Amino acid sequence: MRLVTIQSPTGGTAGILHPDGTVTPLAEAGHDSVIGLIESGPDAWAEAESLASGSGSQRIEKAVLLPPLPRTPRNMFCVGLNYGDHFDEGKRPEGSKIPDAPVLFTKPWTCLVGHDATVELDRTASSRVDWEAEIAVVVGRGGRNIAVDDAMDHVFGYTLSNDVSARDLQLQHGQFGQWYKGKSLDGFCPMGPSIVTAPEVGDYRDITVELRVNGVQKQSFGAAYMVNSVARLIARVSLGCSLLPGDIILSGTASGVGHWREPPEFLGDGDVVEIESPQLGLLRTHFSE
Amino acid sequence: MRLVTIQSPTGGTAGILHPDGTVTPLAEAGHDSVIGLIESGPDAWAEAESLASGSGSQRIEKAVLLPPLPRTPRNMFCVGLNYGDHFDEGKRPEGSKIPDAPVLFTKPWTCLVGHDATVELDRTASSRVDWEAEIAVVVGRGGRNIAVDDAMDHVFGYTLSNDVSARDLQLQHGQFGQWYKGKSLDGFCPMGPSIVTAPEVGDYRDITVELRVNGVQKQSFGAAYMVNSVARLIARVSLGCSLLPGDIILSGTASGVGHWREPPEFLGDGDVVEIESPQLGLLRTHFSE
Repeated sequence: MRLVTIQSPTGGTAGILHPDGTVTPLAEAGHDSVIGLIESGPDAWAEAESLASGSGSQRIEKAVLLPPLPRTPRNMFCVGLNYGDHFDEGKRPEGSKIPDAPVLFTKPWTCLVGHDATVELDRTASSRVDWEAEIAVVVGRGGRNIAVDDAMDHVFGYTLSNDVSARDLQLQHGQFGQWYKGKSLDGFCPMGPSIVTAPEVGDYRDITVELRVNGVQKQSFGAAYMVNSVARLIARVSLGCSLLPGDIILSGTASGVGHWREPPEFLGDGDVVEIESPQLGLLRTHFSE
Repeated sequence: MRLVTIQSPTGGTAGILHPDGTVTPLAEAGHDSVIGLIESGPDAWAEAESLASGSGSQRIEKAVLLPPLPRTPRNMFCVGLNYGDHFDEGKRPEGSKIPDAPVLFTKPWTCLVGHDATVELDRTASSRVDWEAEIAVVVGRGGRNIAVDDAMDHVFGYTLSNDVSARDLQLQHGQFGQWYKGKSLDGFCPMGPSIVTAPEVGDYRDITVELRVNGVQKQSFGAAYMVNSVARLIARVSLGCSLLPGDIILSGTASGVGHWREPPEFLGDGDVVEIESPQLGLLRTHFSE
């Protein structure tokens, strides 16, 4: 099942995305929001799925996709340096090693935009806007101090995201290490197109992702190469900190970001970034000044 | 005007705190939530204030105070190293200087608890839980790229908070600088008792704050000594990033945290932390294992 939030007169409404691109709204199954459906638990998920596959279900031909989980009182946890090749591409001091404990930070919900959105490059704030394709994990069942062995039972599904990063701000505000500011600008978290539920994904380690800028491949990686597995990330993020249904964990990017290219490459007016995965679909973002 | 959220059968409801400790619920003025009132703008604020001062207003004698802004789709921005004496007490490499750009990170809403709450010391997660008294700024009018000169017009009010920090996790996950993990545990952001509106506070630089552990003073400082003023913090946080009504900026702590004491001091079962300010009231927190 592929869950989306589509634009509606009231803001956004939950729906199921079909392979032909049409969407069945979930309102008639009693779920106005994706967060509401996730909170309702497995029985509700199964019911939604059967509704969507029913031949009599309504189909919207052309829906505008919002972020699959629009702004809600939930967290977007982010993980840094979770792929060895991305760690290695950084020009770090001799002898630097990937940290044992995952590098964790957050992005605010004001960053979120959906598939095919246009993100403004705010030149007041940054002239070095970079891409980071990531696999985002959506929490289904909440919990605290979740054991690694139990962690996968807490996954609702997966989606694609772009941890867009203003490298100038990240460095300027990073003198004592904090990356937050450079990652928090409006529109800096394209996400979607849909949440693909865990059963449909199967083994997440088979997920592969490619990022293209104006059609040119810049990143290509597989979830199998994560330093900290999804299970380990859930265990660490939930250590002493309650995860809630609908929380999102961005699992880190691999090599190929613009900042470490020679010469460095950054996003400009008219650039189109596409993040594509056979399992998770296509997330396209337009950047404009 | 001092705004609070009090426990109610539906979770929480907005109210005005009177000097004698009684509370007038704002529901009859049409505001169930503090966030709703803040979003409604200055006319609504004035109306609420006149309601509260009216002689016929309902008074609740003993209200349980929740965090003045309970979990909402808003951000809690945090500022590190914003007082010179706290920077100086840290054992940093020779020649270290306070960064030009404020150190910014976040805390999740799952940290929030109100006045007189009990916070569990989760020993699975940390054995080095420390205090940080802070003045929290509540945003009234939102905006992006807010100029320093205009910034104070965006302040709704102020409250007290404790940026509780697990120093072991902060260091363990801080190999590449991120403080988030050590600051994000459940209950790690006591806040309250009320939001004191900006006109009632007057010049915020007059605010003084004291923190006591079991009655013994550990911190004592004044807002006048912030490295980055509230206006500058608002300008930097809003750079490229839309602030929303109800967003909160924790403005940093001063010297006297437990981690840098000799020997270091951390919170234990039964400890009571009181943060008190002549302008902002008393925020008491009980810690238990």
